[in-house]
Amino acid sequence: MTAAAGTASPVLAAPGAPVVGMVGAGQLARMSAQAAVPLGIGFRVLAGAAGESAAQVCAGTVLGDYASAAVLLDFAAGCDVVTFDHEHVPQQALRELERAGVAIRPAAAPLRYAQDKRRMRERLTQLGVPCPPWAPAPGPAEVAAFAGRHHWPVVLKAVTGGYDGKGVWFCAGPDDAARVLALGPDLIVEEHVPIVAELAAVVARSYSGQGAAYPVVQTVQADGICREVIAPAPGLPPDEAAAAQRLALRIAADLGVTGILAVELFRTERGLIVNELAMRPHNSAHWSIEGAVTSQFEQHLRAVLNLPLGAPELAVPHAVMVNVLGGGEPGLHDRLLHVMAGDPGVKVHLYGKQARPGRKIGHVTVTGCDLPRLRDRAAWAARYLSLGTERPAGRP
Amino acid sequence: MTAAAGTASPVLAAPGAPVVGMVGAGQLARMSAQAAVPLGIGFRVLAGAAGESAAQVCAGTVLGDYASAAVLLDFAAGCDVVTFDHEHVPQQALRELERAGVAIRPAAAPLRYAQDKRRMRERLTQLGVPCPPWAPAPGPAEVAAFAGRHHWPVVLKAVTGGYDGKGVWFCAGPDDAARVLALGPDLIVEEHVPIVAELAAVVARSYSGQGAAYPVVQTVQADGICREVIAPAPGLPPDEAAAAQRLALRIAADLGVTGILAVELFRTERGLIVNELAMRPHNSAHWSIEGAVTSQFEQHLRAVLNLPLGAPELAVPHAVMVNVLGGGEPGLHDRLLHVMAGDPGVKVHLYGKQARPGRKIGHVTVTGCDLPRLRDRAAWAARYLSLGTERPAGRP
Repeated sequence: MTAAAGTASPVLAAPGAPVVGMVGAGQLARMSAQAAVPLGIGFRVLAGAAGESAAQVCAGTVLGDYASAAVLLDFAAGCDVVTFDHEHVPQQALRELERAGVAIRPAAAPLRYAQDKRRMRERLTQLGVPCPPWAPAPGPAEVAAFAGRHHWPVVLKAVTGGYDGKGVWFCAGPDDAARVLALGPDLIVEEHVPIVAELAAVVARSYSGQGAAYPVVQTVQADGICREVIAPAPGLPPDEAAAAQRLALRIAADLGVTGILAVELFRTERGLIVNELAMRPHNSAHWSIEGAVTSQFEQHLRAVLNLPLGAPELAVPHAVMVNVLGGGEPGLHDRLLHVMAGDPGVKVHLYGKQARPGRKIGHVTVTGCDLPRLRDRAAWAARYLSLGTERPAGRP
Repeated sequence: MTAAAGTASPVLAAPGAPVVGMVGAGQLARMSAQAAVPLGIGFRVLAGAAGESAAQVCAGTVLGDYASAAVLLDFAAGCDVVTFDHEHVPQQALRELERAGVAIRPAAAPLRYAQDKRRMRERLTQLGVPCPPWAPAPGPAEVAAFAGRHHWPVVLKAVTGGYDGKGVWFCAGPDDAARVLALGPDLIVEEHVPIVAELAAVVARSYSGQGAAYPVVQTVQADGICREVIAPAPGLPPDEAAAAQRLALRIAADLGVTGILAVELFRTERGLIVNELAMRPHNSAHWSIEGAVTSQFEQHLRAVLNLPLGAPELAVPHAVMVNVLGGGEPGLHDRLLHVMAGDPGVKVHLYGKQARPGRKIGHVTVTGCDLPRLRDRAAWAARYLSLGTERPAGRP
């Protein structure tokens, strides 16, 4: 008896089926691996270590450093197309892959706008897409001048490398700004916009340009981390939802995105404005696994393989997703048992991650008709998985 | 860069999570591997070869012969519980595992009734479960005597090893029976019962005895192979559906089944009678992946891990599943593209198998409100995937 996985070239699919390689092995790659199974395609991940989230489940796991062009070229040699679980692959490596003829989707050019917030703001402004007022922020003088033209507070954002609230600072005045500037990253400054709600418009665009828009959702953040997603966004007028979908489809086309594009939006008194872009499956569409006819993970695979896109419509009246954050306690499997006993209808997704405090280690989704009740159930399940306490369920 | 899968002990889950081992690597193991991902558990399969259906996708694949007790013991050493994708593991090997303290679920004793149709009939008769009239059929005299007490035609069934219509023979008269008897297998003879419809009652029973019953479905067979499954069974009176569910739950409890039990039923003028039993996820509940709150694959994993069972209810008004049979032509991926373009709402499940004529290589599921239209859509998609022809969609 030998480990099948120990063979040099595991068989990942029937002959004739294409192979998708995903760089990165976090939960997005894990859920993509799951979505690849029914399509009968081959699926590989490039992981940094054997214990990473997607590496635990994916037969086609390869270990290596995603920042190395040589590693990426070697990985790509076993794939028909290469796509990404994160935005951290350096542009230089992406360009080298393209020069070598590797089909990377999305391509280096659009990915740059997801990697560099300053270029993203410049490009969206150029395209006439509504954004918050913003400016480069090389030093305190420029931040003060910006606040003078607008008002305090302002938001400082690291141009590169931010995620889940990291790299974003709310600054009430010049002292706050000075502390952030002292950290040293390249920054932009943005107006702190009063918002009615945070929304996300998630769309897919295939390699040949077919588009599909998911229902617009409301996201609820705490400490810069998405906590809850409600699909469809409650109380959003249909014309505003349609406008958000059109805007996201237009950005996907204008930037030449292939795959999923998530457009995080602020709903304001002045209308919709774009907060952030992500060019990969996104936390704001995890609900689609149970709640939509085609999940965002299957849709991303279809888009990068240039397969016709699936129906993005809701398959249920409402879906509510709540992220499970690590509470620092061991015994997650025991807590899972209690959540399953307490609510046989909740769908739990665990990512196989160590439960470090504040880290996203999973999510739960509940679908059905009674939205307030769905929100309570999802919040209870996520809190119990995180903390194992029976605090009364309140909405987050 | 090295293949992660090449490490001696791949990390299959976060610390503290249990590991399920499934013996066999067909499509049932493949879909179970998919269902294991969100539960955050470890999942291994014992495959005969690296290219088998589940081995293509499962990081925890081990190669070896399922009929060898030594191989099974070695496989079980890396698992908390062992379960099965098929019923072909010899009783002797199962008993040896149990003597060694391995948690095999279902256990050897109930599995015997799924492996041996004569023992199954004896036990169900003992339990007062309605079955077709039957008798052992050691030779032509016994078959003729049985037909004399009942009538021709009769059905001869191989006591062991049958599946998908193999091992079941319709015999119009003594000549047909003689031809089957000449093949040499151990046989039973059953009355050929005129049926109104074929149904399946699929239930789960957890290790500690919790039960959950899926909606009763109608199955449509051709040449002994299940072609179409309609959930819930159209036109089945609620009291008859409830009786079928109660019967299946009772059989699961009486036989001591852990995991999924599929009870194939004939609906007849005389009431419901049991045709076959299967103690594993079953073709008649593949619809549950999209159509139920908890899929049968997740449910089986919950049951064998003694986790609380999930809600088995329909998540949609109707679901229709049609099996995709190999048409012998290459180019499945191209046909997939056309099916996706032709119907963005159809859910395709491909098993990564070579498309040998008549072999189950996948299935499609369609969910929604308009049942006749769902049946047409599912039939079209399955036929196109199989044959790549544009024959007008007709119901199977």
